[in-house]
Amino acid sequence: MSKPLILVTNDDGITAPGLRLLIQLMNELGDVVVVAPDSPQSGMGHAITLDNTLYSKKVVIDREHGAPKEYSCSGTPADCVKLGLQELLQRKPDIVVSGINHGSNASINVIYSGTMSAAVEAGIEGIPAIGFSLCDYGWNADFTGISESVKQIVRTALKNGIPRGTVLNVNYPKYDGVPLKGAKICRQAKANWKEKFDKRTSPMGKEYYWLTGEFDLLDKGEDTDIHALNNGYASIVPTQFDLTAHYAISTLNTWNFED
Amino acid sequence: MSKPLILVTNDDGITAPGLRLLIQLMNELGDVVVVAPDSPQSGMGHAITLDNTLYSKKVVIDREHGAPKEYSCSGTPADCVKLGLQELLQRKPDIVVSGINHGSNASINVIYSGTMSAAVEAGIEGIPAIGFSLCDYGWNADFTGISESVKQIVRTALKNGIPRGTVLNVNYPKYDGVPLKGAKICRQAKANWKEKFDKRTSPMGKEYYWLTGEFDLLDKGEDTDIHALNNGYASIVPTQFDLTAHYAISTLNTWNFED
Repeated sequence: MSKPLILVTNDDGITAPGLRLLIQLMNELGDVVVVAPDSPQSGMGHAITLDNTLYSKKVVIDREHGAPKEYSCSGTPADCVKLGLQELLQRKPDIVVSGINHGSNASINVIYSGTMSAAVEAGIEGIPAIGFSLCDYGWNADFTGISESVKQIVRTALKNGIPRGTVLNVNYPKYDGVPLKGAKICRQAKANWKEKFDKRTSPMGKEYYWLTGEFDLLDKGEDTDIHALNNGYASIVPTQFDLTAHYAISTLNTWNFED
Repeated sequence: MSKPLILVTNDDGITAPGLRLLIQLMNELGDVVVVAPDSPQSGMGHAITLDNTLYSKKVVIDREHGAPKEYSCSGTPADCVKLGLQELLQRKPDIVVSGINHGSNASINVIYSGTMSAAVEAGIEGIPAIGFSLCDYGWNADFTGISESVKQIVRTALKNGIPRGTVLNVNYPKYDGVPLKGAKICRQAKANWKEKFDKRTSPMGKEYYWLTGEFDLLDKGEDTDIHALNNGYASIVPTQFDLTAHYAISTLNTWNFED
């Protein structure tokens, strides 16, 4: 049996520790090709590069633990997947994995997630795809204790495929010395960010803002990703890219637009 | 009765003809505040500015037909909405309208849409929101014949509210001399882009790419946005930001991750 072909990408950039770990883990499962941004792209959402040129080059970041083929790309995570599928890979990969993100993509964060945009991009092309994230924003995030789970999930997805029209959004709790309890299939918790803009004045006297905010969980459900994470489990949310709210169509069909 | 407060934004930038028309139309319906990007942001998806400073300034673009208050912002459409809600508006607006985009946001394009990210940002905050787009990519796009429909839809949304957990994605067909036939409530058509990367060499001998592609409709349904647009109707898709594929949860719960 030939080994699966695995495309690995992320949004923190090709040197990020979370990506380097994911590459090592995927090297155990198949033939790995990396196409990842040359610089951090967090908060890029599902951006693609339309009005600018894209550069890509073959790179060696880690001779010992890296993948045989790694490419850095000047674009966004979605660009990396498009470029990988169209130009850099010899054949369609068996799976696309993105991450491991330094920071949560659970709940409403999925909307802003470059990590998940890469997975969605692959999903649109009909390729099984998973985004992995750790709820620890630091560059020195502690990835202890999640490696076996990451490999289990990818192995299971390679065996079973992924439900049609979805990609998986996997998040791990921040490591606090307690072993991971397992993984739960969840729905996205309802939440938003209570934004605060930190208004400052530059040395030249110009006013500017920093966007900051606090996560505001509005959802008491016990079947949510946030509930799983808060209780020491990995959360796995099947995430769709048909954004139609089918339940709302009948209501809207009662509207009279001629008023 | 006090007039509704309407926040207007877009992703083509504050000088775009589609935005200027939308402002004029909204001036007829309520008190308008504009917060829009100072430069085009197309293809930005749901990006937000986390690693950079944000600038905003009060501007006058069109003394005759503009809004009383207009702000340009250095950020993305989602940034504009966050900044507007948090810092620039005196109270929560009654509705947020985004557009009129120069180019289609129907079908899978919604995923990459800055126009719709602004609407979604408002939707997350519980504010009724609508994104408007015209299937004509040119800066000189012909907006003939859609003004009454835009006002009707906004008036109806102000009266009825918008179904919970959704924002509306409204697209208009490119004008070809035939009057708009009406508006249809639709689902997002299944489609993808067949990417082609145009590989070139710079004057300095460096290889680079332009992302190009062709829209590939995979969906023969007559209830889709593309079908409505192809038949001369505006399409209205209720778009959700709970991305959970609830239908897939039971399947995933049959998986055994211990294998």
